[in-house]
Amino acid sequence: MNRFITFEGVEGSGKSTQIQLLGDYLTGEKIPVVLTQEPSGTPIGRKIGDILFHRGHFAMCPETELLLFLAARAQHVREVVLPALQSGKTVLCDRYSDATFAYQAAGRGLDPAFVAAANDYCAMQVRPSLTLLFDLPVETGLERAGRRDARLTNPAAADRFEREKLDFHNRVRQAYLNLYTAEPERFRLIDASGSVEEIADQVRGQVMDFIHKQR
Amino acid sequence: MNRFITFEGVEGSGKSTQIQLLGDYLTGEKIPVVLTQEPSGTPIGRKIGDILFHRGHFAMCPETELLLFLAARAQHVREVVLPALQSGKTVLCDRYSDATFAYQAAGRGLDPAFVAAANDYCAMQVRPSLTLLFDLPVETGLERAGRRDARLTNPAAADRFEREKLDFHNRVRQAYLNLYTAEPERFRLIDASGSVEEIADQVRGQVMDFIHKQR
Repeated sequence: MNRFITFEGVEGSGKSTQIQLLGDYLTGEKIPVVLTQEPSGTPIGRKIGDILFHRGHFAMCPETELLLFLAARAQHVREVVLPALQSGKTVLCDRYSDATFAYQAAGRGLDPAFVAAANDYCAMQVRPSLTLLFDLPVETGLERAGRRDARLTNPAAADRFEREKLDFHNRVRQAYLNLYTAEPERFRLIDASGSVEEIADQVRGQVMDFIHKQR
Repeated sequence: MNRFITFEGVEGSGKSTQIQLLGDYLTGEKIPVVLTQEPSGTPIGRKIGDILFHRGHFAMCPETELLLFLAARAQHVREVVLPALQSGKTVLCDRYSDATFAYQAAGRGLDPAFVAAANDYCAMQVRPSLTLLFDLPVETGLERAGRRDARLTNPAAADRFEREKLDFHNRVRQAYLNLYTAEPERFRLIDASGSVEEIADQVRGQVMDFIHKQR
């Protein structure tokens, strides 16, 4: 039984809040969970994340961005995800391989065949058993992300991803929806346009349904 | 005419001293040069280098190490090497793709086919026209590297590469020699066991010979 659950979606879709709420809920249900994230799920990954999200690194080329995310993934899978799964825990992970296909292949336009081969190399055979896709209009998500820390009124405070144009984020959203269409048995679509409570209800329902079917 | 000259070899082979001496010599000969290095040839690469050589990162898995070096290379080729070559400069680079085959494929035992494919992706078609291989017995090189900053008497001061056992460094040396055997027209072997002056004479001779043949 593999309980590797990933949270995916565009900026401002509320994933990070929801992963915490689900973690608390599952802990209350006596289900042992590990909450983690990419690229910052290990000490080395946090340093890689500092490079990726540094507000001064606008010269970074897309290939470097891809390889840094993959370097963090290789470390994260071996140091955190695989040991947790092997000890029988449920792993909740904020972003994983699908984000690389959505952001670096579709968003940045990098060769999907190389992205797939390099991702397989990093992730080995560790694939999510359930992926929650938080979907909402890109404009709503960006407005939320902006409201969160006033980045929209101060663009210099935004990282390389938040500064990208609407078109980039729409390509990312569409790529996520294509992944969902291609693998409906793994994905569950979460309508992320509602309130925190409404979204939490959907997440809990989908995850408990998945867990009951696994039992 | 492509004048991309790389300096390769095991630890303590004197590459870094020699690249400076050759740079000074070529500048005196009115040949415009750019001196650079991997992984630290760009601001982003220096931060990647900080992660790779951090004395606390002993949990780093080999795959992460490989991808970090490649991330730095992708940035370095696009930001430094290619623009310099295109403007007609001679580029002297301390370590490049051959180091990845020697250290990560042969030294760490990573899949050479993946290393080759991923390296091609990062380096595009930018290949050295001349590679100086600084060769000497591994023991001599490590002793020199150790003497340089007393790392041998204080192992905690050594980075992940310097701490590796003799066997690792011997695999790296042998891999370099195999690359040399496979591409004798690109490589020139430098006997790095002599004095700084003796090595500088060999380097200057080989490089001027290469430059004259190109003219």
